[in-house]
Order: sequence, then C-alpha cells, then structure tokens
Amino acid sequence: MAEGALLFPPLQYSYLCTMIFSSALIENAVNEFAKLPGIGKKTALRLVLHLLKQETAQVEQFGDAIARMRQQIQFCKVCHNVSDAEVCSICSSHSRQKQVVCVVESIRDVMAIENTQQFNGLYHVLGGIISPIDGIGPDQLNIHSLVERVQHQGVEEVIMAVSPTIEGDTTIYYLSKKLRAFPVKITTIARGIAFGGELEYADEMTLARSISNRLPLESYVQNK
Amino acid sequence: MAEGALLFPPLQYSYLCTMIFSSALIENAVNEFAKLPGIGKKTALRLVLHLLKQETAQVEQFGDAIARMRQQIQFCKVCHNVSDAEVCSICSSHSRQKQVVCVVESIRDVMAIENTQQFNGLYHVLGGIISPIDGIGPDQLNIHSLVERVQHQGVEEVIMAVSPTIEGDTTIYYLSKKLRAFPVKITTIARGIAFGGELEYADEMTLARSISNRLPLESYVQNK
Repeated sequence: MAEGALLFPPLQYSYLCTMIFSSALIENAVNEFAKLPGIGKKTALRLVLHLLKQETAQVEQFGDAIARMRQQIQFCKVCHNVSDAEVCSICSSHSRQKQVVCVVESIRDVMAIENTQQFNGLYHVLGGIISPIDGIGPDQLNIHSLVERVQHQGVEEVIMAVSPTIEGDTTIYYLSKKLRAFPVKITTIARGIAFGGELEYADEMTLARSISNRLPLESYVQNK
Repeated sequence: MAEGALLFPPLQYSYLCTMIFSSALIENAVNEFAKLPGIGKKTALRLVLHLLKQETAQVEQFGDAIARMRQQIQFCKVCHNVSDAEVCSICSSHSRQKQVVCVVESIRDVMAIENTQQFNGLYHVLGGIISPIDGIGPDQLNIHSLVERVQHQGVEEVIMAVSPTIEGDTTIYYLSKKLRAFPVKITTIARGIAFGGELEYADEMTLARSISNRLPLESYVQNK
C-alpha cells in the first residue's frame, strides 16, 4: 500500500472549496459567467460545458449578440427608453396616443407595462427614483426633459407609475410640484388588492387605501 | 370614460404569454441567453438588463471570453481532455504518475476528480459510455487510443471511474476484455455507502456490495 499512499495524499478539506481547471480558456469563461447575478461557479461551469458541446458558429453568435447589444444600444432621446435608433419605436409610432405620458423608474417597468398590451400612450423613463440615502437627487434623473415634454409637446395627462414606497411618493410629490405650472392632468396608477390576492393577507395601508379609493361597480364590470 | 376605454382595450390572456421588446438588439440577446440550459426568458432578461448597466468594455470581454473559449479550445491528443495546447497540462506534467490511467466518461468527471486533489495519475476521457439504446457503440468512443496507450506507454494500472449503471458496467466489461491481452492491472473506484450517508436509506445493491467488499479497519483509519 506504500504506492497507494503516495497516489492518494491525505484529504484536506480546505482544498475542496476551489475549482481546478485544466484549461485557462474554460476558467476564463466560467469566471465571466459567474459575474452575472444569481449564477455561481457550478452553474457557470454547467453553462460553459453546454456551450462547449455546441457548434463554434452558434457560440460565436451568442458572444456576438451580447457584445453587439451593449455596443449598439441607444437610449431614446425623447423618453430615455432603450432603443435601436435615436427615437425608440414607441415614441415614433403613429398609432399611440402622444398626449398621455406614463412616468416609470426603469426600462424594466416599460417592458412590464408593454407586456400587458393595455397601455397605448408614451413613456418617460426617469432612470431611477429620488433617494437621498443613495445620493440620488432630482438632478441625476431625467426630470428636466419630462418638464420640457409637458411644456412643449401637448401632453394632456402624466401617469405616475412608480413603486409605492417612500422614495416613490417623494418622487411623485417632487414631479407634481414641478408640473403644477402646466395645464396637465396628473394621475397615479391604482393601488389596491391585487387580482387573486386575499383580503386577510393584505397589509393595513393597502386595505385602508383600497377602501377609501373604492370604485362604482359599473367601472369594475366595464374594466373586466 | 370613452377615451379611457380606448386607452385600455379589453385584456386578452393569450397576450400575456409573449414578451414584447422595444429593441431588436435586446430581444436577440435575451433569446441567445434563453437557449442555455436552465435559463428561461425572465432570467435571460434579468441577465441582459444587468449587462446593459455594465461598461461596454466589460460586456465585450464577456462575449469575447465565451466565443474565444469555443474557437480556441483543443482536445488533448493523448487523453482527450479539454486543453489549451495539443497535449493537456495534466498529460504534460512531470509530477504525475504516468503509469496510472483513470478512465472517465466526460471532461466533467476529470474536473470532479481533479477538484478532490487526491489523484496524481493521468486520465483518459472516453467521450461517452456504451449505450445501444442511444446508438452509442464502442466505435464512437475513444477506446482505440486507450488500448494504444496501454500497449505502448507503460501503463501499469487502469482505474475504471464510470457511473455505476448498466451502461457503465457494459463499458467496463468491454474495456476489460479489450485490455485483457496486456499486463495491466484493472481496478474500479470503490462503490459503497457515501460519507455522511445513512445505512437505512442506502439501496440494497449498494449495501450488499459494501458488505461483501468490506475493508480491514487499518486501511479505513489510514485513508481517513
């Protein structure tokens, strides 16, 4: 067993935490994948080994699509949404109601609302929310361009579709003060009990607000 | 409410299944990510939006690392492991015992064994396992090169480290028949109760085998 003992040196548990790669190319690719949110080293390795089994052209296409996306992406100069051109497809569409502007925090919120296919106006992406704790003031957000749009482009209604948090309420308050000077209707998206939500599990604030903002039954039936 | 009704056309649930992108570049990148195993459209979108927030150079580096990995990867001409050169770093290492060859199914198994840091011999990657149902016969695997290695390169021991399945046993049987002609010791990795595993939950086959292949206590203490 003298030879066996040489072949298998005593186990050290500290060793087990590292991953050993026989190829620097693979190690590099795994490390890049592992930088993504929610992807650890083991998942990264699984993805890399999957790509290794694919055709070279397919993997090149993958890498190229990611790099090109970041290189060529533009932000719409009207609404600050992501765009393939100077003005995004929503802002340049002729079938949308240009007098209604929905103010959202991020690109993700635009996508969420677009996916409902229920809104036919335009958007305005603030690029964040007023949050003094994080050092984000009104100057870091796309507020100036919103005021300009309201002032010069015949906007009749601004819908505030920001998260119902303290920062969201601060932002709504700040924007409504800025826009008070113009003849524009300011609304917020409805807060209330979600469809499928149960009353007993709703927090008091939401429940109280949903009672005080109750709607006539006709509008409920109509919207349904 | 006539205008409101126009603004919000009636909800159709079939709409909710699709994702609408305002940018073809983003749609493309999301689709590429969603091709990876275990990554759906929502996760893909989250990853893409994360990359969108990074520096262009960093995202280029990501895409490049993936594409370059696939383009430049080579397979070691000795053991068929992934490699950055013609012969992999394990096969070309001077500190490894070249007379011991561990036969494994895939690259992943090499990594798993390497991560234990307990094995100091060489490997031979079969590239699969004999499985008539999947149409994989001995000719599709790297068996010929294994026989050549055993015949000409002074291999003294071949360790069969394949999965304990019917296909694995078939492969071991086939290989042992092929190698019988040469003066080489053939071993398999130990099957038994895993560390931390409980006896009562072990299947009968494993338990029976681990009793019949019992070891003297000295070797247990030595290996621990």
